[in-house]
Amino acid sequence: MFNAGFDIGGSHIAGGLYDARCNLVRRVDEPFPQGRPEEVPALVARMAGELCEGLARGALESVGLAVPGSIDRARERVINAYNLGFHDFPLRARVQERFPDAPVLLGNDADLAALAELHAGAFIGAQCAVLLTLGTGLGGGIIINGRLWRGGMGNGCEIGHTILDMSGEICTCGVRGCAETRCAASALAREARAAARARPGTLINERTGGDPEKIDAKFVVDCARAGDAAALFVFDRYTDALSSAAASLINTLDPEVIALGGGLSGAGEFLFAPVREKTRKKSFYREHARIVPAVLGNDAGMLGAALLYDDDKK
Amino acid sequence: MFNAGFDIGGSHIAGGLYDARCNLVRRVDEPFPQGRPEEVPALVARMAGELCEGLARGALESVGLAVPGSIDRARERVINAYNLGFHDFPLRARVQERFPDAPVLLGNDADLAALAELHAGAFIGAQCAVLLTLGTGLGGGIIINGRLWRGGMGNGCEIGHTILDMSGEICTCGVRGCAETRCAASALAREARAAARARPGTLINERTGGDPEKIDAKFVVDCARAGDAAALFVFDRYTDALSSAAASLINTLDPEVIALGGGLSGAGEFLFAPVREKTRKKSFYREHARIVPAVLGNDAGMLGAALLYDDDKK
Repeated sequence: MFNAGFDIGGSHIAGGLYDARCNLVRRVDEPFPQGRPEEVPALVARMAGELCEGLARGALESVGLAVPGSIDRARERVINAYNLGFHDFPLRARVQERFPDAPVLLGNDADLAALAELHAGAFIGAQCAVLLTLGTGLGGGIIINGRLWRGGMGNGCEIGHTILDMSGEICTCGVRGCAETRCAASALAREARAAARARPGTLINERTGGDPEKIDAKFVVDCARAGDAAALFVFDRYTDALSSAAASLINTLDPEVIALGGGLSGAGEFLFAPVREKTRKKSFYREHARIVPAVLGNDAGMLGAALLYDDDKK
Repeated sequence: MFNAGFDIGGSHIAGGLYDARCNLVRRVDEPFPQGRPEEVPALVARMAGELCEGLARGALESVGLAVPGSIDRARERVINAYNLGFHDFPLRARVQERFPDAPVLLGNDADLAALAELHAGAFIGAQCAVLLTLGTGLGGGIIINGRLWRGGMGNGCEIGHTILDMSGEICTCGVRGCAETRCAASALAREARAAARARPGTLINERTGGDPEKIDAKFVVDCARAGDAAALFVFDRYTDALSSAAASLINTLDPEVIALGGGLSGAGEFLFAPVREKTRKKSFYREHARIVPAVLGNDAGMLGAALLYDDDKK
């Protein structure tokens, strides 16, 4: 039997066909139909057709869909996926209509990345683990008792919107002090832009030629590695915040592993060493979660989508 | 069959004998042997003897112990229970020596209070629920999948030491901004003392006659109810913090119920109405946890201890 997983992103849709051992046997990519999200179901069906070419009828066990957005408790509708243009869209049913023989399942991409790490990445063998994805936002997924945690009421989880800094800045969601305001990769870039404005003589300014748009998280890491005081200052504040988020998860859930994903996690020990050291000081327990890089990268959502059917049966 | 539960507190030890339906059939109380914690095992054995008088041999299924402190991952030793004077003390084994026929189990009192609420209180029928105990500290216990959550690594949970206010005050644990620094009942009293010092003309000062030691959480609530501006200000800050803690739990675990316990929860709707309203605004989900008073009060730890054996078997 085979399972298909689709990671539906703002720029493109990636589809993968996986065998029973989670090996990727075929993949297809298509650009996202910008401005025409209602075309996604037909596009997914066409991509699935390509993936399954030559397969026996009934060999496709399930079709999983990963979307970067919030999903209703029945896991039928995409409530909001701003990058895709889905708002209260019944995506599961619209795709299901095109697959009479295989169940279609819907999940949040960060959740599904955690599920993928459980089966084939940083969480193998773990019963309890947390993935934090450091990107434009702060995404996350939780594994509890060896399964994807879908929330006690089915709402999923939004670790990025736990409150970490009550006296801090207002989040895009409207609440003051969400972890996302401090731990997203974009927060590092935003604070570096502010620091650069405040201190004109920094390496950040020199390297950007005064254009703050050139400052992203990787740029800040590069300047910090080069010893720039302003970049080191904001990077230190960033690891303060990320270690506080990690310690909060440890002191609540006590997971065995916390994995950091997203581009910024590529900074390696320059990021992980201070985060581990600061988390150790803030953790209530002597023995606590390992903090490691996520393993699966860009294909995590696609693989997680293919695993949804199996995880659901547990 | 019967189960015995002991709640070992800093001022006294309460023991209860419960039948298979969790009815309390007998109870005993003894003062805590101040300064001689090593006498606790013998005292517990003597109290159990009283509880079990007349019972057939073998009718005692288990003995559970609730302590206000941290417990090692093997649930053998009390790592620290400052109010009791236990430091790395092998309490379970010391008590077990005196009970050849019944297993002895050890738990944290806030965890066990949550377990008691699951069986006989605010969490009946829930699969996922969180108890927050508003006292000198901020205690808490988590129910996941209808069982007491013991942490992914067996460390339990310390919700009071999740970080809520990174730019705030330093906690007794040494970390800046723990939820306990803002949400413990003692935090409300501490902030009221500071407000009273800053504004001499307040009702707080008038009622205390200038003695800040008279200010406790209940006193602040009384002054706030009476319309005192300083008391209302700190109470508003308190419900800001408590709702942020609740929203963080909702956005991570998405529990069905959050119960507030401890003396301060007796403030009723004066506390619950603003906490619910503010939590609603900070929650990521339209439908989210109910926020209710804990039901069981002082006997929760004792009942939870008696339930440990049964929960362990699940």
